[in-house]
Order: sequence, then C-alpha cells, then structure tokens
Amino acid sequence: MKYPNGRKKVKQENNYANLGMTLEKDIDLTNQYYLNNNIAVIHKKPTPVQVVNVSYPARNKAKIVEAYYKTPSTTDYNGIYLGKYIDFDVKETKAKTSFPLRNIHPHQIEHLRKVHEHGGIAFIIVHFKIHNKYFILPIDIILKYWDNKQGRKSIPYNDFLTDGYEINFTYHPRLDYLKVIKKHYLT
Amino acid sequence: MKYPNGRKKVKQENNYANLGMTLEKDIDLTNQYYLNNNIAVIHKKPTPVQVVNVSYPARNKAKIVEAYYKTPSTTDYNGIYLGKYIDFDVKETKAKTSFPLRNIHPHQIEHLRKVHEHGGIAFIIVHFKIHNKYFILPIDIILKYWDNKQGRKSIPYNDFLTDGYEINFTYHPRLDYLKVIKKHYLT
Repeated sequence: MKYPNGRKKVKQENNYANLGMTLEKDIDLTNQYYLNNNIAVIHKKPTPVQVVNVSYPARNKAKIVEAYYKTPSTTDYNGIYLGKYIDFDVKETKAKTSFPLRNIHPHQIEHLRKVHEHGGIAFIIVHFKIHNKYFILPIDIILKYWDNKQGRKSIPYNDFLTDGYEINFTYHPRLDYLKVIKKHYLT
Repeated sequence: MKYPNGRKKVKQENNYANLGMTLEKDIDLTNQYYLNNNIAVIHKKPTPVQVVNVSYPARNKAKIVEAYYKTPSTTDYNGIYLGKYIDFDVKETKAKTSFPLRNIHPHQIEHLRKVHEHGGIAFIIVHFKIHNKYFILPIDIILKYWDNKQGRKSIPYNDFLTDGYEINFTYHPRLDYLKVIKKHYLT
C-alpha cells in the first residue's frame, strides 16, 4: 500500500483512535432506536464526576472549573425490557484468543452478580475487534472465571463461541442485542 | 429574636440552604442499607456533566477545567427489587396545600410514563417539609394532572393523602420506601 502524501495514513490513525468509542456509540444508537420504537427503555448512565470548584460567570450559569473523573460504582447501562430489569456494560478488546478480566472493574462484576441474584438480566457485551464479532456474555460465565482465584485471569475466545450469544451488526438498529436477549433469556 | 452579632442569622441561612439535600441524602443512605442487607440494588445516577476542557497536570490524572451541568434525560434513581424494575425521582417542597408540577422536568415525567408502560414500578417520592411528611406518588396519579392540559398545574396535598403512600421516617433505614412499594405494588 502506498501513501503518496501521507494523508491516508493520518486518516487511518484517526479512525483507529476513535475505535474505542465505536461500540458505545453503536449501543447508544441502538438504545435510541429501542426508545423511539417503544421496544425498551435503556439509558447510559452519565460518567461520574467529582466536582471540586464551580464559578458563576453569569447569572444562572454554573461553570465547573475543577473536577475529576470518578470510578463508576455500577455498570454503564441499565433499564427495562419486556418488564425485566436489564443491566450491562460494554467492552472492546484488541485481544485475539481471550478477553482479559482486568478490562472489567471488580465492582462492576460484583454489581452484575447482585443484579443477577435479584432476578435481573446481567451481562457484558464484548466486541472482539480482530474477529469483528460481538457477543453477549452472561454474568454466570464471567463469574466462573472471576470466582476461580487460582484460575486464569482471562476468558477464552472459545467460551464466547460456546457460551456467549453472538449479536449481528446491522444497519438499523446497529446491534440488536435485545433480540438476542429475548431469544436466550425470555423464550 | 435578636441577632447580637449577626452570626445566628448566618447559621440559620446555612442550615436552610442545606435542607434541599436532605431527602436525597436520606434516600442514598436507605439505598446503601438495602445494598448492605441484600434487599435491593438501587443506585443514584451521576449528575450529567458536559465536559468541554480537560488538562493533564500529572500523568494519568485528568483534571476537568471547563464543564457545565446538563439537564438529566431520566430520573435520578433506578434499580431492581424483588425482580422488579424500580424507577423514581425525589422532590422536596415548601408548599403546604399542593405540589407544583413545575418541580418535575417534563422529560422525567415522560420517562416515568414509559417505564410504567413497560411494566416497571415508576413513582416520585415527595417530602412536604411543612407537614414533615413523605409520600410515594405513583406515576398514574401524576399523569392524571399532567395530561389534563386545561387543568391545574399542581397536585393537591389531599391527593397525596388519598392516592399516595406515606413513608414513615425511621432511624435505620431512614426512609424504608421499598417496604411501602412491596405492600402496595407487590402483594
């Protein structure tokens, strides 16, 4: 491949940098589709921020001038679908043969465990970029590895193929994960 | 009443200013109690913030130097209780005879309506400070007034007494609203 003026390469790098946001964006668009079509009510939670200092340059307009990102205490997404409580997080990985558990915060796993115990539908959505495949992985599969302290600290890609549920990427909605949830959890 | 050096008045104002946070704090403590005792998993959503500018004064430490509060698109609280999806907001009012509907954002009401339609338990918790009483008001009672465009723009206190469910203030947990939810929605 040739880059006659280098621009193509720059463009590639930009695309690459944006990849980290793609899955979240696709899920947000899918949730908007669910909302517009009255299929489900699922929202992304705001990123938690610790506000330290606020100034008031104008009336009724608070400007935050010092704040820091906080570690979230739960997952990013939750809501209701067919009367069921839904709770999940989304993760992208460049890994090929396994999903490293360090990609999930311990309190997110514990949160999903509690949701599961209380009768909610708890899972993660993982995008394996190299395979360009999307999977729902139920919390009990994650816990099988998480709770095994002597065991490996990653979930083999093969487990996604056997115990996960693949989500096909489509145009509209982008990632119809609730269709997959309905098939595997609710029928 | 005398204010020999003005300090007493200042102290009063401070206390008064903090009142607005009391109900939220009591609900947060109650939710922590529910979590610790494995009764329910209910969290407050972070306040949404639009981050405009971030600086990096030290490695791995992002400092937000310009950000603004955004209007939330949903309610503040949601979660799962006895397998049911729970969604609500909390409001305090100094009003005596009615609760003004302008205290709730229109999109919060529409969000609660959708949750209700999808089979969730949707309501608001209102603290009437003058009466020192706390009520759960189901979304259908709110919608009765909200959808009546010609009608009054506030919900009479009397409706809280007849159609709302009172929550007693106790020490631990502070406001056991799920006990009230269980009695009126789940038995």
